[in-house]
Amino acid sequence: MPRQVTVWNENVHEREEPEIAELYPDGIHGAIADAIAEDGHDVRTATLDEPANGLTEDVLADTDVLVWWSHCANDEVQDEVASRVVDRVHEGMGFVPLHSGKNSKPFKRLMGTTCNIKYRHGGETERVWAADPGHPITDGLGESFEIPATEMYGEPYDIPEPDRTVFISWFEGGEVFRSGVCYRRGRGRIFAFRPGHEAYPIYYQDEVQTVVRNAVEWAAPTPGADAVYGEVAPADE
Amino acid sequence: MPRQVTVWNENVHEREEPEIAELYPDGIHGAIADAIAEDGHDVRTATLDEPANGLTEDVLADTDVLVWWSHCANDEVQDEVASRVVDRVHEGMGFVPLHSGKNSKPFKRLMGTTCNIKYRHGGETERVWAADPGHPITDGLGESFEIPATEMYGEPYDIPEPDRTVFISWFEGGEVFRSGVCYRRGRGRIFAFRPGHEAYPIYYQDEVQTVVRNAVEWAAPTPGADAVYGEVAPADE
Amino acid sequence: MPRQVTVWNENVHEREEPEIAELYPDGIHGAIADAIAEDGHDVRTATLDEPANGLTEDVLADTDVLVWWSHCANDEVQDEVASRVVDRVHEGMGFVPLHSGKNSKPFKRLMGTTCNIKYRHGGETERVWAADPGHPITDGLGESFEIPATEMYGEPYDIPEPDRTVFISWFEGGEVFRSGVCYRRGRGRIFAFRPGHEAYPIYYQDEVQTVVRNAVEWAAPTPGADAVYGEVAPADE
Amino acid sequence: MPRQVTVWNENVHEREEPEIAELYPDGIHGAIADAIAEDGHDVRTATLDEPANGLTEDVLADTDVLVWWSHCANDEVQDEVASRVVDRVHEGMGFVPLHSGKNSKPFKRLMGTTCNIKYRHGGETERVWAADPGHPITDGLGESFEIPATEMYGEPYDIPEPDRTVFISWFEGGEVFRSGVCYRRGRGRIFAFRPGHEAYPIYYQDEVQTVVRNAVEWAAPTPGADAVYGEVAPADE
Repeated sequence: MPRQVTVWNENVHEREEPEIAELYPDGIHGAIADAIAEDGHDVRTATLDEPANGLTEDVLADTDVLVWWSHCANDEVQDEVASRVVDRVHEGMGFVPLHSGKNSKPFKRLMGTTCNIKYRHGGETERVWAADPGHPITDGLGESFEIPATEMYGEPYDIPEPDRTVFISWFEGGEVFRSGVCYRRGRGRIFAFRPGHEAYPIYYQDEVQTVVRNAVEWAAPTPGADAVYGEVAPADE
Repeated sequence: MPRQVTVWNENVHEREEPEIAELYPDGIHGAIADAIAEDGHDVRTATLDEPANGLTEDVLADTDVLVWWSHCANDEVQDEVASRVVDRVHEGMGFVPLHSGKNSKPFKRLMGTTCNIKYRHGGETERVWAADPGHPITDGLGESFEIPATEMYGEPYDIPEPDRTVFISWFEGGEVFRSGVCYRRGRGRIFAFRPGHEAYPIYYQDEVQTVVRNAVEWAAPTPGADAVYGEVAPADE
Repeated sequence: MPRQVTVWNENVHEREEPEIAELYPDGIHGAIADAIAEDGHDVRTATLDEPANGLTEDVLADTDVLVWWSHCANDEVQDEVASRVVDRVHEGMGFVPLHSGKNSKPFKRLMGTTCNIKYRHGGETERVWAADPGHPITDGLGESFEIPATEMYGEPYDIPEPDRTVFISWFEGGEVFRSGVCYRRGRGRIFAFRPGHEAYPIYYQDEVQTVVRNAVEWAAPTPGADAVYGEVAPADE
Repeated sequence: MPRQVTVWNENVHEREEPEIAELYPDGIHGAIADAIAEDGHDVRTATLDEPANGLTEDVLADTDVLVWWSHCANDEVQDEVASRVVDRVHEGMGFVPLHSGKNSKPFKRLMGTTCNIKYRHGGETERVWAADPGHPITDGLGESFEIPATEMYGEPYDIPEPDRTVFISWFEGGEVFRSGVCYRRGRGRIFAFRPGHEAYPIYYQDEVQTVVRNAVEWAAPTPGADAVYGEVAPADE
């Protein structure tokens, strides 16, 4: 079923660093949007430097799933925009923060924790294990896949205990990380996925694209029941 | 997407008590199967008195979701059949125990707890609240619905903390109960739904049928990732 | 083991409404502090109208468990104070919001949801059931207890799925509510307990005082392991 | 607070293999019992070859926490003994299966899953990370510790989503594993801890002993509330 997907990117590295621009000539958002579009969804992109950071009320109202990439400019997102994203998640919009999107204002507000980690640059190998091979976000994957060169993220990862821990990563240097974790907040589904860094071609990798596409499908809103809040008369007369 | 659904019923009350037979002339399984078939699924029924309790390896291998009603004959299910059901849930078959199906051998084995409750006959009113109106099993429901006359089930309900508590019931006599709870065991999704009693026309009620149909859709298997168990060579050479 | 406990109260109803002042002559915070002190803890109180809302860095640094009552003035708490409370919870401070404390800035920030409910004034009966009688917060209670007259809170309660659902309430008017729910955020334990309203003598009731005392003991910090965040060298040389 | 602790061991390797007997001259149970006794608990041991596998009703009735080591003889435990252990966990006894104790009858019955894993012999390095440094089972540990030589266990680990994932292990050969996971079943607390193998001196290692001692304290029973099951009169007259 075709969905309205918005891919958001801070789009800073691509504009400021020539080697990143060469790696992602259409931006990281472009690479991700292309991958999602293969499933027939209606995909648009939005970036930090647009008015309202590209996430106006109209855009969000028309978004089923928001995929979010950010790294160095998390603090530059407007507070009002972050609130709007959080509100839309509560209403049912899916939210898929990638990589340092775990430090984004919307994700931290939805988690209620610091989301702190340890990290290391240097391009070491990551092996991503499907810890929950029964989860639909793993559809079509093998039991693990390797990312040849990446930034390391290590535990402890200061997040609430996940609803489901879908992926756990192994790193060459000795660390582990819960690389794919699921939550619900209000009516909205959230899947935080670790892989991805501006300096490596990770978003062109088949398995990573498969995960992102599966996450879009998993996080898409479903109708649910009515909910009445506020002052009410007795249900039982 | 059409699914292979098997509705299992102990089918004892209907054969031994004329007033129950009158209420459910095709058995409780017949009423439930008719409700599920409305969604275009391929529905069959199975009962306790059939060979292998109607749940042969072939039947289970060809079942996407097993809906289960039982009450007075839970102990008569063959141990081997119960094991077979549990194994199939681990492989991915959905399992939807209704009412005293919470006392069935497969459900208790999947939970690892006693599943004890308190109860009371007498036909009092139950009001079923959607505690998690964002859950797909509540699609199409109002915020609550009333069952005019039923058996009461009361907390504490000795189950593992659910993955999601979808419904909580209020009873006229002063009790509450987690009436709809979700779990996963292996690749299989489980939704235990309290409403239903042989002496009341509960399975003809619209909201109850909606929940059962939603549960079938929610519990249906999804492919997932490969999983390799047993002795292995190092992943990282 | 004696703990440093701070009981915070907005203390508005008691100062503005004579009948509330008569019911709680030492403030709601006074009644709660007295109940907690019975366990030998070192209890202090703090209120909204004090500098820094009574919650300076020094006070919080010296607080093991913060018990919080609020109702009509949740928005008047300073943002900076709310952040300080949240930070201390992440570091390990226990947090026990009572009644409309579920609408407080710290609780909503820790949950990441709206915490919306339905409600009704009018003094109806509430019956609080121990849904998890194995939880230490229920120590010393019977299977349920009755609050003769209270404000109703009803589901859906827009919170993340709790780590443990300890209490579920039944209301005379037909509603149910998850009245006692546990979470962890960072190193801090959180227990949100519904009962309590300024117009009823609920905080003088034995069972309610037992729950609050148990919650203080349960939520008190424990040391844990070291955690290193930020840039690191490989663990495995 | 001193507790009644029973350390159970199948005690097969130690009797059949001289090099294991040399490494653990008092049996693995002896090494573990000594470590626990340092905290002042009243510790006894029990083994497979004793009548009723050493776990009579009297022994279990007098056990607060059962620590369990098994590996090659899991299937030889009597079904009736396994049921008795499960029943006692439901009543509140703590249960701490170590290493292949995850394949024991009681643990598998309590989980309701296969508990399957992948594994590899060969004595490679394991690094155990505290993924939840706020959990009391990590008290006194650094952020990680290394086991120089061990058997590998790898994901996927077919268990229900844990209540808390306390430890995640990294293995030299490229795998990861949730090495310390918490559950509750009925009133009983369960902590499954991976490290430990008959051929390595793992149970003499400080950090491992610290974890086992912490687990005993964490898993010890607490009183809780009354629970009434079965047929009842209305709570609300």
